[in-house]
Amino acid sequence: MTETVLLAHGSGGRLSHDLVRDVFAGRLTNPLLDELDDAAVFALPAGAGRLAFTTDSYVVQPLFFPGGDIGKLAVCGTVNDLAMRGATPLYLSAGFIIEEGFPLADLARIVDSMAGAAREAGVSVVTGDTKIVNRGAADKVFINTAGVGVVPPGVNVGASRVQPGDAVLVSGPVGDHGMAVMTQREGLRFQSLLVSDCAPLNGLVAAMLAAAPGAVHCLRDATRGGLATVLVEVADTSRVGIEVDETAIPVREPVRAACELLGLDPLYVANEGTLVAFCAADAADAVLTAMRAHSYGREAVRIGRTGGEHPGRVALRTALGVRRVLDMLAGEQLPRIC
Amino acid sequence: MTETVLLAHGSGGRLSHDLVRDVFAGRLTNPLLDELDDAAVFALPAGAGRLAFTTDSYVVQPLFFPGGDIGKLAVCGTVNDLAMRGATPLYLSAGFIIEEGFPLADLARIVDSMAGAAREAGVSVVTGDTKIVNRGAADKVFINTAGVGVVPPGVNVGASRVQPGDAVLVSGPVGDHGMAVMTQREGLRFQSLLVSDCAPLNGLVAAMLAAAPGAVHCLRDATRGGLATVLVEVADTSRVGIEVDETAIPVREPVRAACELLGLDPLYVANEGTLVAFCAADAADAVLTAMRAHSYGREAVRIGRTGGEHPGRVALRTALGVRRVLDMLAGEQLPRIC
Repeated sequence: MTETVLLAHGSGGRLSHDLVRDVFAGRLTNPLLDELDDAAVFALPAGAGRLAFTTDSYVVQPLFFPGGDIGKLAVCGTVNDLAMRGATPLYLSAGFIIEEGFPLADLARIVDSMAGAAREAGVSVVTGDTKIVNRGAADKVFINTAGVGVVPPGVNVGASRVQPGDAVLVSGPVGDHGMAVMTQREGLRFQSLLVSDCAPLNGLVAAMLAAAPGAVHCLRDATRGGLATVLVEVADTSRVGIEVDETAIPVREPVRAACELLGLDPLYVANEGTLVAFCAADAADAVLTAMRAHSYGREAVRIGRTGGEHPGRVALRTALGVRRVLDMLAGEQLPRIC
Repeated sequence: MTETVLLAHGSGGRLSHDLVRDVFAGRLTNPLLDELDDAAVFALPAGAGRLAFTTDSYVVQPLFFPGGDIGKLAVCGTVNDLAMRGATPLYLSAGFIIEEGFPLADLARIVDSMAGAAREAGVSVVTGDTKIVNRGAADKVFINTAGVGVVPPGVNVGASRVQPGDAVLVSGPVGDHGMAVMTQREGLRFQSLLVSDCAPLNGLVAAMLAAAPGAVHCLRDATRGGLATVLVEVADTSRVGIEVDETAIPVREPVRAACELLGLDPLYVANEGTLVAFCAADAADAVLTAMRAHSYGREAVRIGRTGGEHPGRVALRTALGVRRVLDMLAGEQLPRIC
């Protein structure tokens, strides 16, 4: 076997088969993937309810960063998109676009990382595809994952269920992922203090839903655009106002320092293992207790509530006691963060 | 709105939302996509049977070619992967990776084309994602589609069901797609005669399965690596020998001429709307009749049979009456053909 990816690895011929066998199939092995057919075919669990289906492409740069890499990200991101609809993630697809000349050892490391994240999340990669493009036609490797999961009967979370008076919770400090990637990319000195929060949140979500059945109205992972963008989206979709206390929002000290240095607002910086939950106010303590008992929710806090004077908008009470309206990002803050 | 894609279109902020609304959502509109949530959630048809799940990324270059473009390809390719397992395709995801500076008008044309192909195939794009990468980090646009479909009870097609004595059918001439893309890319004179066969084959497959229930054992669309690679894969997986008549394999004259000029073997050139079927010999006429009655199977023919002296291998009887064993491509014949 060569040490780098060749165009011929994408031919559909002998080298393609070798690549699938030597790099992908062994690491991600499961009975459905091992069939290596055009599509995976499987029965859903009995009484599975509705299906959830989602996709994301990952173009993060650099590929490896403190706390994760593009492989872990590709699994966690799609698992989380399913979990945010209340679904139990089951199966993933993986599509790789690889630049000719990419080191096979790096590819193997990425696939190992996918396998580890899939194992932790309890999902299987059951179907995949690899395309190789000529040198210069892509930047090293891009990964797309799609995922299917089942939404248990009775579970119904979504922005349209948000009601005035809901509590707004966040599962942990914000901005870790974006700043970890950014400082790694820029080679900044304090990068060692910054670690991505990249994690599969389906276990945390299951614990939250079990703690207060029916009381969790909406879940969002605060990825691109950060916490602020998620709040603006939910307010806009639900037409319910949101009021948030800036001082209640957890931000780690090194993230705050890095943001200050780079002129960024941590509320707009991407997270990959931090969620925002809207739940009935009288269930908030039970949900928070369940979150804090889970390793990915230990620092969960309440940051605000819905309602107020401005339906469809987000008001932030700043540390100085001033109210300002949050908006979406107008430009691009951090390209290729996920 | 600007006329080209900006990095800020991928920020998750205001411009991302504008892009989704102005370019994607309107063209691909359906109730599930219109929710624009993290994942689409839907009930499956009652008594749906098993689920089929597949993915492919598309990196074809050029993006537009006679008979199709990357958008049509991205829908048809994934629809066909589902159909080849006997599944009724239902829902697709679409993930775009776009280079900064790509013209929005071209993107709109591609999405229009996806919408048209989805309409023809009877599927909906229900979830999606867009990433923008800096100039030079990708070649214009790459698309990933994943698809889910349902396999009706009683339908079971796959390479492991191939038996000695099966008839081998092909739905039409081979090599059209690869040569249409190749000559377009190279600007060859006779390109006007070459048109991709790119098409959704789920309707054709449904007609074949209905014509002879249980008799169709295996279906494969002859994409990357062409007809020869599909035959080698099926022989290898099923451990059944395959004997094919070279003179029976339909190849259009301009494809033959272009292949000769470029030193290519049409049996290894990609197709995007041509399938190979293995079916019980006594049902072959019924299946062929059904194929020929369908617009994508009008030129369907029998090209060989399974069995013979060499289990697991493919023997080609050439025009000169010589037998040669077909193998997979060793190198890369035509990069970025799909």
